[in-house]
Amino acid sequence: MENNFSWIRQPVILVNEIVCRNNIGRMVEKAATMGAALRPHFKTHQSGQIAEWFRESGVKKITVSSVAMAAYFADYGWDDITIAFPVNLRELDTINKLSEKARLQILIESAAVAQQLNESLSHPQEAMIKVDSGAHRTGIPLDKPDEILALAEKLADMSKLRFRGLLTHAGHTYRAKGLHDIADIVASAREKMVKIKDKIGIDSLILSWGDTPSCSMLEDLHGFDEWRPGNFVFYDIMQYHIGACKLEDIAVQLVCPVVAVHDDRDELVLYGGAVHFSKDFIAADNGFKLYGYVQRNDNGVFSAPLAGAWLSELSQEHGIVKLPKGGAKDFKPGDLVAVLPIHSCLSVSSMRSMYGFNGEHYSCMSQI
Amino acid sequence: MENNFSWIRQPVILVNEIVCRNNIGRMVEKAATMGAALRPHFKTHQSGQIAEWFRESGVKKITVSSVAMAAYFADYGWDDITIAFPVNLRELDTINKLSEKARLQILIESAAVAQQLNESLSHPQEAMIKVDSGAHRTGIPLDKPDEILALAEKLADMSKLRFRGLLTHAGHTYRAKGLHDIADIVASAREKMVKIKDKIGIDSLILSWGDTPSCSMLEDLHGFDEWRPGNFVFYDIMQYHIGACKLEDIAVQLVCPVVAVHDDRDELVLYGGAVHFSKDFIAADNGFKLYGYVQRNDNGVFSAPLAGAWLSELSQEHGIVKLPKGGAKDFKPGDLVAVLPIHSCLSVSSMRSMYGFNGEHYSCMSQI
Repeated sequence: MENNFSWIRQPVILVNEIVCRNNIGRMVEKAATMGAALRPHFKTHQSGQIAEWFRESGVKKITVSSVAMAAYFADYGWDDITIAFPVNLRELDTINKLSEKARLQILIESAAVAQQLNESLSHPQEAMIKVDSGAHRTGIPLDKPDEILALAEKLADMSKLRFRGLLTHAGHTYRAKGLHDIADIVASAREKMVKIKDKIGIDSLILSWGDTPSCSMLEDLHGFDEWRPGNFVFYDIMQYHIGACKLEDIAVQLVCPVVAVHDDRDELVLYGGAVHFSKDFIAADNGFKLYGYVQRNDNGVFSAPLAGAWLSELSQEHGIVKLPKGGAKDFKPGDLVAVLPIHSCLSVSSMRSMYGFNGEHYSCMSQI
Repeated sequence: MENNFSWIRQPVILVNEIVCRNNIGRMVEKAATMGAALRPHFKTHQSGQIAEWFRESGVKKITVSSVAMAAYFADYGWDDITIAFPVNLRELDTINKLSEKARLQILIESAAVAQQLNESLSHPQEAMIKVDSGAHRTGIPLDKPDEILALAEKLADMSKLRFRGLLTHAGHTYRAKGLHDIADIVASAREKMVKIKDKIGIDSLILSWGDTPSCSMLEDLHGFDEWRPGNFVFYDIMQYHIGACKLEDIAVQLVCPVVAVHDDRDELVLYGGAVHFSKDFIAADNGFKLYGYVQRNDNGVFSAPLAGAWLSELSQEHGIVKLPKGGAKDFKPGDLVAVLPIHSCLSVSSMRSMYGFNGEHYSCMSQI
């Protein structure tokens, strides 16, 4: 393995281990300072090897977004797993098999589904009520406390499902306008969740919170028993735009071969398209689309993002880079460029594998 | 395997073999009628097994979008392959290895790259000049005939690269407004390509054309020696909106478990998100987004798309279905729904495997 990346022939995701371990360490420390357990979401990296970096930082509990992902990480020895996704009743067999080797937290938002589970589980499992703090994707709205209380009462009577607490994912912090908005979202959710917990009257119930913007940005995030951010392990341009990270905190970059140079229109064509990056973008009203920032390879060291250069278009295998006037003369076919992606989770999920700077291979769970 | 799909536990792509074979058969016949060779693009299905359905319809030449894809299909016995992507100079070793068992057409748009290839190839290969008929992604613009002629002259002198013809991908037919626009795009490109071929003065040069909208929609598509459409094997909602297919011609659907039902806001939550569908959508000015049409499972038969229902939102693993007022009462967690996707190529590329209606498994090439 040489530093000039001669081993890179096709688009690859490079992980900067030092930056990544720093991101993990900072979040572990911050959660501990606020008295919360960190239960990081592993959907971002989906890699048994990178998971070890968390273990070495003291992390023992994890969050995943599918039963298949829980099974994958259970094979790597993780045995305390929250499946942060509504129960898929078609996977009861897998859940039962998994429950022989791991302690699972299962999300419940409907009494009928809870009843079905309670009758079908082979081993007792923990249940969290999924509450909706405003993202409006899943869960019972916090503004309907009576529905939450009614479900809590039913859960408290069940033998196989053991009621453990309330869980929410404030996905709407991704659309929030700045720090104050995010602080308001947190404060309002916390107040309602604490009130509902008091009404339920079970002291041992936990309140579980999690999303990368709030866990990264807020100085004060007390009052929750556990945090479940995921993206912070790598961060990305979206998090940078939200203000959740600095550019230097982004731990992954897609390295792509240049396959054509168009001087006349200040463009590069990359081998690196929608199948590698996924299709998330940041758009402006004038038709501008941003799929990533672009870095030049200067003798084996990738530069800071080039001013006035951006990944502007993706088709299946092609990426188009816009350059400042005259900028194409610095590139030729066969060069490598590195792109800081808009959404690291989806890029990793598209690529299914990552590499270290010296060619170390990190495999990810395969799609079903 | 039963017809009630009890074997489906997680999101899967179902392929309707009959519809798919009909799509292939129609295109084979249409190309033959117009005197063109069909060299279908295999990036849509990326499956060695589905490729056999083409072979059984008489197809002998194929198009792919990467060197890796060429190597994958060469392993399935395909030996006449156009790599419809600018040469990636970092994969010369693979190209040379591949050229021992397959006849390759390589796309050239720069004299410098052609020169480098000519010096590095171990076996003679065929070269097509990539011309840009208006998509403005890659290739030399047809409006710069002198540049094309200059490159042709250089290619004609090379020993390892054998100049075969002009190739264009009219990707801008995807954005065309109806049949007349598409016909205009074709007529204008054809006129210019024929003129340039005449000026080059080599009778045996071929003109290669290809995109699903024009090959599907135009009654008259004479004047090209070969066609390279790809998406037509499956079609999708985007092609339906362009007018290139009927809904009944769409040969793939994503079947997803229902994991939550929200009566109060007429929504379903599916296990099926961006990692399964990819993130392409059709948008309207009012914020409306369409990721797919939704079909109900009626005792093992998927209905026609439900009026007023659509896949409206995707996160990593979740999909949100909007239903007409009161429509949620027809669904419960554990049900299956089928979704006709916006972009079949990217869905297949995300999932990397497909199933037949009786559970037959079709594998796809893996990502690098």
